[in-house]
Amino acid sequence: MVRIGIIGSNGRMGQAIAQAIADAGLDLAGGVDRDGDVAGLAAKADVLIDFSSPDALEANLDAAVAAKVPMVIGTTGLAERHHWLIDEAAAEIAVLQTGNTSLGVTLLAHLVREAAARLGNDWDIEIVETHHRMKVDAPSGTALLLGEAAAKGRDVTLGDVSDRGRDGITGTREEGHIGFAALRGGTVAGDHTVHFLADNERLALSHMAENRGIFAKGAVKAAQWVREKDAGRYTMPEVLGL
Amino acid sequence: MVRIGIIGSNGRMGQAIAQAIADAGLDLAGGVDRDGDVAGLAAKADVLIDFSSPDALEANLDAAVAAKVPMVIGTTGLAERHHWLIDEAAAEIAVLQTGNTSLGVTLLAHLVREAAARLGNDWDIEIVETHHRMKVDAPSGTALLLGEAAAKGRDVTLGDVSDRGRDGITGTREEGHIGFAALRGGTVAGDHTVHFLADNERLALSHMAENRGIFAKGAVKAAQWVREKDAGRYTMPEVLGL
Amino acid sequence: MVRIGIIGSNGRMGQAIAQAIADAGLDLAGGVDRDGDVAGLAAKADVLIDFSSPDALEANLDAAVAAKVPMVIGTTGLAERHHWLIDEAAAEIAVLQTGNTSLGVTLLAHLVREAAARLGNDWDIEIVETHHRMKVDAPSGTALLLGEAAAKGRDVTLGDVSDRGRDGITGTREEGHIGFAALRGGTVAGDHTVHFLADNERLALSHMAENRGIFAKGAVKAAQWVREKDAGRYTMPEVLGL
Amino acid sequence: MVRIGIIGSNGRMGQAIAQAIADAGLDLAGGVDRDGDVAGLAAKADVLIDFSSPDALEANLDAAVAAKVPMVIGTTGLAERHHWLIDEAAAEIAVLQTGNTSLGVTLLAHLVREAAARLGNDWDIEIVETHHRMKVDAPSGTALLLGEAAAKGRDVTLGDVSDRGRDGITGTREEGHIGFAALRGGTVAGDHTVHFLADNERLALSHMAENRGIFAKGAVKAAQWVREKDAGRYTMPEVLGL
Repeated sequence: MVRIGIIGSNGRMGQAIAQAIADAGLDLAGGVDRDGDVAGLAAKADVLIDFSSPDALEANLDAAVAAKVPMVIGTTGLAERHHWLIDEAAAEIAVLQTGNTSLGVTLLAHLVREAAARLGNDWDIEIVETHHRMKVDAPSGTALLLGEAAAKGRDVTLGDVSDRGRDGITGTREEGHIGFAALRGGTVAGDHTVHFLADNERLALSHMAENRGIFAKGAVKAAQWVREKDAGRYTMPEVLGL
Repeated sequence: MVRIGIIGSNGRMGQAIAQAIADAGLDLAGGVDRDGDVAGLAAKADVLIDFSSPDALEANLDAAVAAKVPMVIGTTGLAERHHWLIDEAAAEIAVLQTGNTSLGVTLLAHLVREAAARLGNDWDIEIVETHHRMKVDAPSGTALLLGEAAAKGRDVTLGDVSDRGRDGITGTREEGHIGFAALRGGTVAGDHTVHFLADNERLALSHMAENRGIFAKGAVKAAQWVREKDAGRYTMPEVLGL
Repeated sequence: MVRIGIIGSNGRMGQAIAQAIADAGLDLAGGVDRDGDVAGLAAKADVLIDFSSPDALEANLDAAVAAKVPMVIGTTGLAERHHWLIDEAAAEIAVLQTGNTSLGVTLLAHLVREAAARLGNDWDIEIVETHHRMKVDAPSGTALLLGEAAAKGRDVTLGDVSDRGRDGITGTREEGHIGFAALRGGTVAGDHTVHFLADNERLALSHMAENRGIFAKGAVKAAQWVREKDAGRYTMPEVLGL
Repeated sequence: MVRIGIIGSNGRMGQAIAQAIADAGLDLAGGVDRDGDVAGLAAKADVLIDFSSPDALEANLDAAVAAKVPMVIGTTGLAERHHWLIDEAAAEIAVLQTGNTSLGVTLLAHLVREAAARLGNDWDIEIVETHHRMKVDAPSGTALLLGEAAAKGRDVTLGDVSDRGRDGITGTREEGHIGFAALRGGTVAGDHTVHFLADNERLALSHMAENRGIFAKGAVKAAQWVREKDAGRYTMPEVLGL
């Protein structure tokens, strides 16, 4: 049975991952937090899931490489330097790094890219998301990930066509732009819709998370998948065979 | 049969009203535009519908009062001065002035006010609207009308609690605030949704206009209703018996 | 402290109610299931909450009446015969029967009735609901409750105008009918939307439950409220003062 | 200039197609209706568009084959027998049969197939559609087309897994089934949503037609495309190069 170790096990995601491991009938190899013994954890795990902090990433990667244990990294707030470290480690172990571990969102991004590639600029793209009242930033990381997927489909750079915080006298909509809007309230775990709006017809591609458990479940699925892989850097779409 | 006269008959709304009069099996008494003979039109009409311009309002009201003909005013961009003129005319004829002639939107505003009055501040209110790509301002006038309805239900002033153009590091949502978001694209005639988001449950109250004909239809219904009334100033909710 | 007994305590709702009783700092008098000792439970409870099955209703009511204990009935799938039994019991004890114990749904029903009363028969009413894959009946009790609210608003009997299971060659829609549709899948706790569809415009009034906790919380609130009441039959809107 | 003949020219779609032919600057060869002279029409047209009724299909195909004129068939409610007839005719002329002529729906079907292929049977598929009050059958041809796309993605036969007209005591949902629900009312030109419902997360892929013009426009585009083709049976995705 696959033994999974959690780095950042006391955080909200860490706890959800422990639950997801139990739900999947897998073995929890253990968990560590700030200043915990990552090397000791790596020694008894078949794969590691890291939802700790960017500061801890280097030590975590070192421990995984030393123990030859594959790793899923879901830590947010990574800088360019962290991506170099991941690339280095990926020369020796399998590493899957992602900003969103939900399988549904991963598939949605794929569909959005496909739709954007097939439809012309006469289909205006608007992305709207809703999150709970405690969220402090907008748009969500997932909304931006979906915007990137749409931009890739159209072969443009998101930063060049992004319309955010629309308010006041805006003028008519610019062709080719991608709009973002954010709603906040209640306990919404995360709703995202990408609208494609044309003359007299519309497409809408949506994902709704009922609770945060789906991110933990996706991380565990990614861990099972990456555990079988050779050294290299992997992404969530590959887990779905995309 | 009711004979309806249109002031501003060549505009987009004027043409739609002529169609709506025909659809309702009523009589079109005629139409006038800039520098047209409003007095002549008033003499042969049972009721007037004015979708012309603020500048023409005073002369239009004078003609209606002289002919003792009731009037529906849908002209936008009215200043305080125009409202005084309407009040004066309303001492002698029935006048219904409104910024939105749709029966559905009128009812929605009523339901939003009722819901906001019944639900506590632990239900966060968010208003999102979608309009065609040619619209130059945000939020829409109708979104603001719905925000006013919510604010009235809570007995607060919209300006004090309004959250617009949410983007970047916003911090957690403030209790009691009313959020607005605007999507733009395609040929959308007008979608509006008011969300009430609480712990683990949500209400959403929506209106969708399939095309602009509904505003013309509502204006004609208002004209039929106001024609029967004594002198006084009336509103759309009264047409629906609200 | 109020002691609450649960009939149907091993079901999903029964377990959620036990949690809600603990969350509210109240006493769980105990729980029974199929063939359990309801009389014994009634003897030690101040109020009963029944989420079992229609078949068990008569025996449950008998036990409550014998013990003079008020009762909240949330069981779905009741037939006319069950309502007679409830009316009989309500001559001796306080009984609150409802198809839905959530605050949000109760308010939604109120708004639906109001909308149906204001809008003519040219606004077609369609009710669509989504529930998890384990639900065995359709439409949901809440959908029927919303249909009743719409029918009351129009002053008609739901049974006379109800369109269910639309499939095949149906002919054109009958004016004044109220349609029902049911979606099933995943772990959806309960989405309900009442559509009002007119010529070129639409209203939609929706409720979404993120999890079943809201029903349990509302049932416990109803139990606390009905416990204070004299014999008689009560409804959720009364709990909320609507 | 391409001369297009319309079978079913007095129906709503027939009229919209005549308009679309004019909008595209093409020639209307003429139109026929119930008991009209289809052979006469076929003789003077370069391509036929049939939006009449299943009963008329055999005679229409015979006329097209006799005149060696390609044909677009948008008639809904076809049985297996009709598909055999189409296959027979396709041995001699080019025939494009489709349940939906819109570009957006064609792309949606492509995305639905892709999603169904990637997601396991633990994602329940439910298809809901809304159409105007005059529509006489359910589910819509487009809903069935989307169901076929989902079934193809899963490598199953739609007829084996189709759940229609859900009502009453249905039991729990069967794994792998594809559900259909139909709403009717107002003047809705056609809304379709394919839901994928999993544990704690959902995807929804939607198309909305604001008016019937998009179907007529697509039918005319298909007619121009099929007119150039050799004998054979064709589909909408081919028109778009999917």
